[in-house]
Amino acid sequence: MILTVTLNTALDITYRVQELRPHTSHRVTEVTERPGGKGLNVARVLAALGHQVTATGFAGGATGRSLREQLTRTHGLVDALVPVANATRRTVAVVDRSTGDTTQLNEPGPVITPAEWSAFLEAYDDLVRSAAAVALCGSLPPGVPVGAYAHLVRTARAAGVPVLLDTSGEPLRRGLAARPDLIKPNADELAELTGSHEPSRATQDARRRGARAVIASLGAQGLLALTPEGRWHAIPPASEHGNPTGAGDSAVAGLLSGLVDQLPWPDRLSRAVALSAATVRSPTAGDFDRAAYEKLLARVSVTAA
Amino acid sequence: MILTVTLNTALDITYRVQELRPHTSHRVTEVTERPGGKGLNVARVLAALGHQVTATGFAGGATGRSLREQLTRTHGLVDALVPVANATRRTVAVVDRSTGDTTQLNEPGPVITPAEWSAFLEAYDDLVRSAAAVALCGSLPPGVPVGAYAHLVRTARAAGVPVLLDTSGEPLRRGLAARPDLIKPNADELAELTGSHEPSRATQDARRRGARAVIASLGAQGLLALTPEGRWHAIPPASEHGNPTGAGDSAVAGLLSGLVDQLPWPDRLSRAVALSAATVRSPTAGDFDRAAYEKLLARVSVTAA
Repeated sequence: MILTVTLNTALDITYRVQELRPHTSHRVTEVTERPGGKGLNVARVLAALGHQVTATGFAGGATGRSLREQLTRTHGLVDALVPVANATRRTVAVVDRSTGDTTQLNEPGPVITPAEWSAFLEAYDDLVRSAAAVALCGSLPPGVPVGAYAHLVRTARAAGVPVLLDTSGEPLRRGLAARPDLIKPNADELAELTGSHEPSRATQDARRRGARAVIASLGAQGLLALTPEGRWHAIPPASEHGNPTGAGDSAVAGLLSGLVDQLPWPDRLSRAVALSAATVRSPTAGDFDRAAYEKLLARVSVTAA
Repeated sequence: MILTVTLNTALDITYRVQELRPHTSHRVTEVTERPGGKGLNVARVLAALGHQVTATGFAGGATGRSLREQLTRTHGLVDALVPVANATRRTVAVVDRSTGDTTQLNEPGPVITPAEWSAFLEAYDDLVRSAAAVALCGSLPPGVPVGAYAHLVRTARAAGVPVLLDTSGEPLRRGLAARPDLIKPNADELAELTGSHEPSRATQDARRRGARAVIASLGAQGLLALTPEGRWHAIPPASEHGNPTGAGDSAVAGLLSGLVDQLPWPDRLSRAVALSAATVRSPTAGDFDRAAYEKLLARVSVTAA
């Protein structure tokens, strides 16, 4: 089982409107809703790849109930979210029908109480023991200590379970000190962490700060990987047009999938890049186009860097 | 008991953002949620005035559950909403913090099945018998026949219960033919119904189409009333600055409140105008400022028109 942790889950709502015009009224022509937050996106992709996944984190209120109802419909995914008193946040993506341009509205996360955080830690301690790998993904809701990921990384390492950390800012900085097996920052997150906008240098710096391997995601330039086994650059066959939402989460899923399948690094990177490109190509944000994925898999270029 | 009917209930969500800019990402700094749809706004104001109110209509899904949980907290209001399979719509009002300007996103209503519509009619037939007055408010969700209000007006009249209709377009046109006791169109609704932009002429025309009394709401110009007992023009003491959302619903509540209290028309109109102005003045859209209401009440000018 792969364990994904999403402390700041969300109910992701997408509205289609003709064209968003500030200070006017809009008829929403199409509404879709689905479980969100980086870790749940990763879990969904892993489940679609045929892995057994357990998703933990927090869920509360009416929005949390909606989210959990939808999770139960995902084959291969076990819901181990910890209930909280406050309501799970919503995110609203307003898509202009004419251009596909998207305006994003993100609610703040619910405040987590110390008792709820303790209940989560207890659940996590149990779950991590039976996991083949753990992914810690996304932002922290208010009330969760900023060193939360450092603690969760240490627990996983003590249990001998490989742990991937995908977050940003101070939670990433603190988490790194606990020496996760893998981090997957994008160019902005790397620059924020290291102060360098030069990917190769920033990746090296990030590794020096404590990650066993750093996989930097560089958008259309693919992935740059610095690992104890070597350095690679994995590039998709062509730049994809479409919606990049969730492409990074699909890359995380690809890396984890390749890890538990014990693939060599170049194959793990191919899987991550192909899934990421197939996610950009999918009409639904955060889903991947399976046929595209299978075609792309053999066409990713992986070279020693 | 006053019965309010809201066939297209909504969970009204308000987001505060710094400034809405299309095609960018926004952190929502404040989220509020409350039961919405015109009839529920009317019910809330009536309850605040001390009336016993029963609210019927439809509610379904997670949004319907949230809405009902909040209704139970309103003193003096009985929830008699009929459960439906599809989810109650949301409306999202995005308020710019700097200017107070509002961008509105309205989801489509849930599709109502013929069986659900029948269940509603049965519930309504029972409720209307014990009502002192009925208000039929707002739009129709998909699946409800366009002649719905005509049917509901007839049922109320057959039971000898005064009935107010506050809707627009074809449902208003059809509803009028069933001869409601009262309609409260605004200037746009009147113009759409009659083709005339001249309020006095349009109000007369609307009355000729079947309403026993027509109370036209003309924004800052107050209310123009054509009734079997006479014609009046009721004007607030000053033009109010603020948020006009819900001002029309407060006017409906004032008219109903005055009706069941058996006030003469000029006093009913004063109540409606003062409530409407006190709603514009309230910082929260759709609530009224009670102190302002009590002060305004004596200062509304009502003259024979």
